[in-house]
Amino acid sequence: MASSLPKSPLAPAAFPTLLEIDGVKFATISAAVKYQNRPDVMLAKCIPGTSIAGTFTQSATRSAPVLDCQKKLGGSEQNGAAILVNAGNANAFTGQKGIEAVQAIVNATSDATQIPAGRVFTASTGVIGEPLPFDRITKKLTELNANLAPDKITEAATAIMTTDTYAKGAMAVCEVNGNKIKIAGIAKGSGMIAPNMATMLVYIFTDAQVAQKKLQNITTRLVNKTFNCITVDSDTSTSDTLLFAATGASGIDASESTVFESAVQSVMQDLAHQVVCDGEGATKFVEICVTGATDEASAKTHAMSIANSPLVKTAIAGEDPNWGRVVMAIGKSGAPADRDTLSIWFGDILVAENGWVSPSYEEDLAAKYMKSEHICIRVDIGMGSSNMTVWTCDLTHGYIEINADYRS
Amino acid sequence: MASSLPKSPLAPAAFPTLLEIDGVKFATISAAVKYQNRPDVMLAKCIPGTSIAGTFTQSATRSAPVLDCQKKLGGSEQNGAAILVNAGNANAFTGQKGIEAVQAIVNATSDATQIPAGRVFTASTGVIGEPLPFDRITKKLTELNANLAPDKITEAATAIMTTDTYAKGAMAVCEVNGNKIKIAGIAKGSGMIAPNMATMLVYIFTDAQVAQKKLQNITTRLVNKTFNCITVDSDTSTSDTLLFAATGASGIDASESTVFESAVQSVMQDLAHQVVCDGEGATKFVEICVTGATDEASAKTHAMSIANSPLVKTAIAGEDPNWGRVVMAIGKSGAPADRDTLSIWFGDILVAENGWVSPSYEEDLAAKYMKSEHICIRVDIGMGSSNMTVWTCDLTHGYIEINADYRS
Repeated sequence: MASSLPKSPLAPAAFPTLLEIDGVKFATISAAVKYQNRPDVMLAKCIPGTSIAGTFTQSATRSAPVLDCQKKLGGSEQNGAAILVNAGNANAFTGQKGIEAVQAIVNATSDATQIPAGRVFTASTGVIGEPLPFDRITKKLTELNANLAPDKITEAATAIMTTDTYAKGAMAVCEVNGNKIKIAGIAKGSGMIAPNMATMLVYIFTDAQVAQKKLQNITTRLVNKTFNCITVDSDTSTSDTLLFAATGASGIDASESTVFESAVQSVMQDLAHQVVCDGEGATKFVEICVTGATDEASAKTHAMSIANSPLVKTAIAGEDPNWGRVVMAIGKSGAPADRDTLSIWFGDILVAENGWVSPSYEEDLAAKYMKSEHICIRVDIGMGSSNMTVWTCDLTHGYIEINADYRS
Repeated sequence: MASSLPKSPLAPAAFPTLLEIDGVKFATISAAVKYQNRPDVMLAKCIPGTSIAGTFTQSATRSAPVLDCQKKLGGSEQNGAAILVNAGNANAFTGQKGIEAVQAIVNATSDATQIPAGRVFTASTGVIGEPLPFDRITKKLTELNANLAPDKITEAATAIMTTDTYAKGAMAVCEVNGNKIKIAGIAKGSGMIAPNMATMLVYIFTDAQVAQKKLQNITTRLVNKTFNCITVDSDTSTSDTLLFAATGASGIDASESTVFESAVQSVMQDLAHQVVCDGEGATKFVEICVTGATDEASAKTHAMSIANSPLVKTAIAGEDPNWGRVVMAIGKSGAPADRDTLSIWFGDILVAENGWVSPSYEEDLAAKYMKSEHICIRVDIGMGSSNMTVWTCDLTHGYIEINADYRS
């Protein structure tokens, strides 16, 4: 079971200190949806005026809660918002009963929080295809609501974990027109990670004031550079959800602030990297940087082909500077490439150029580099000027152990 | 190293008896290209009149021998043909020196066999990016040519192995207009298997008489149904080559024979399945059958998405009837699907229908079925009438062991 897994060797030393975000409170509770004796449900309640943006899985088999959330993004901000998440059961591929479960949870959350049902966003994460015992959640909602407090975001990060080996949080503070704006986010995810418009579950809060359409634009743009650029195993979840709530409690409009956008990007990138570092069985964090491609989409296709190749990922696990497998992954990607204009670096070591191994290449140095915990593979396609960076982890016995034995 | 791997548990009981094909002779020799003390080079020589068809990797980083072969397919049949293959070094991503190595081998083969250079087809399989010590091969060619004999196809199948744990051969005999036609084929491959127009190395011979264009049409059509429908690890080789030689020695024209085409398909399918059964670390042979898709391309996209999903493949390794992961793989594939019209079977067991687990489903029965060595997963998309079947294997610790430690 999830909680029995040892903590990833790539885990941060400690959970970061997340400052309180004015305008949002959190609560968690143990509802025993699947996991016993640990908090497995979290509630966040945002004040009236909060705008909510989101991105979701593009899976054709997306879950009932995802479909419900997608309908609600444009709702009225004057009513505030509530977010209710359970871990242990994804309520995905559960047919009509799944839709009914979402309705029951939304209504109970609305009753307890006095937020209209149209502004209650839910998510469920865990096993697919089993009916969600929603009554275990609904009967706890009054108590959950009574527990709301502004300083419980760390508990919220812990309550949404499934196969995660550590809780994930990130924080940024920036200045907009001389006023401090705070941004705090939490995430969960470690397997079934190849997000397509969002990843697993991510909740980000700010006290900035940002109109919903602006907030959605910022969210979509930044998700494409962060969460959509990570992969653990090329498998895409049925439940991926990212919500970004701007409470406006600071009274500062950050809609047009590039400083604000940059601060949000740092939070998203930090959380995305933490998801990769908790990749199932991961022992190495790997950055794949592709430059010189004909266009940005091709750069990403090449980068993801390398990042998802089992042969590249096992070579990294084995600390083998096997650049032939990198060549293979570029060749198979389908994006434009020319064998004879490729250059490949492992860290700062030029490995291959002009269609062959570099004359300066020394395998001993590359082998030593591969022992690092953070590996950077850079490929210049030599055909254009477009770039893309993506992040992944290695493929180890740990991945097989977790997924051949545990029904997640 | 390759040869030290234990034989796959899915290996056939024995190498099949391959009848001699009139018009072609084989020889093998130990040239120590990389492997010591085993035959690692094979030569096949076909009589004048032999037509040659082929399919090759679509990799943008394909090897020098592949590029050379592709140019030669349309050459004159009156000169016969020679095929020269070495194992241990792929001569891929070896720059100008790689091209020179192909030229040297082609010329030496031409000199020894008296077949014009334009009809000498070579292939190299093994490690990528290391210079091919071609002189070890060229200096053996006179001796190799002297050893040619019609009954050495089994030795040829063995000489081209790399990480294969067993040699692969298949045979069919059919009747065209009352005359017997023989077809025999050999293949190698066990990793970097997600062929795109061909797989690894495959050589098929027949004594039928088939004009080159007809032979190419048959080859392309059948490869799309057989070798292009297998995957071990989603990685596509830089060296994939399939050649089909029709010597015409029987004097029987089989160009328009559906019986002949069906016999060739059985040989190709048999070899393709043998490649999957030797998939690195494989303990289960898995057939994925998708029906009811909107079109054939969508059916294949869904089937390959399931066949390449690490989460599906590890569940099969763990003998877990985890159909939720099958739903996930369909959802992420990008091809049209509707969660609520999907049906899923494990063997004959109906697992899910109408967007949820089937009322008749008993997990105990499914769990028992998953203990089989041959697993069949069938998915009906419920949106159309197009079908596709693909074949793969499970993902086990064996795959990690082989690829995290061995530079292949």
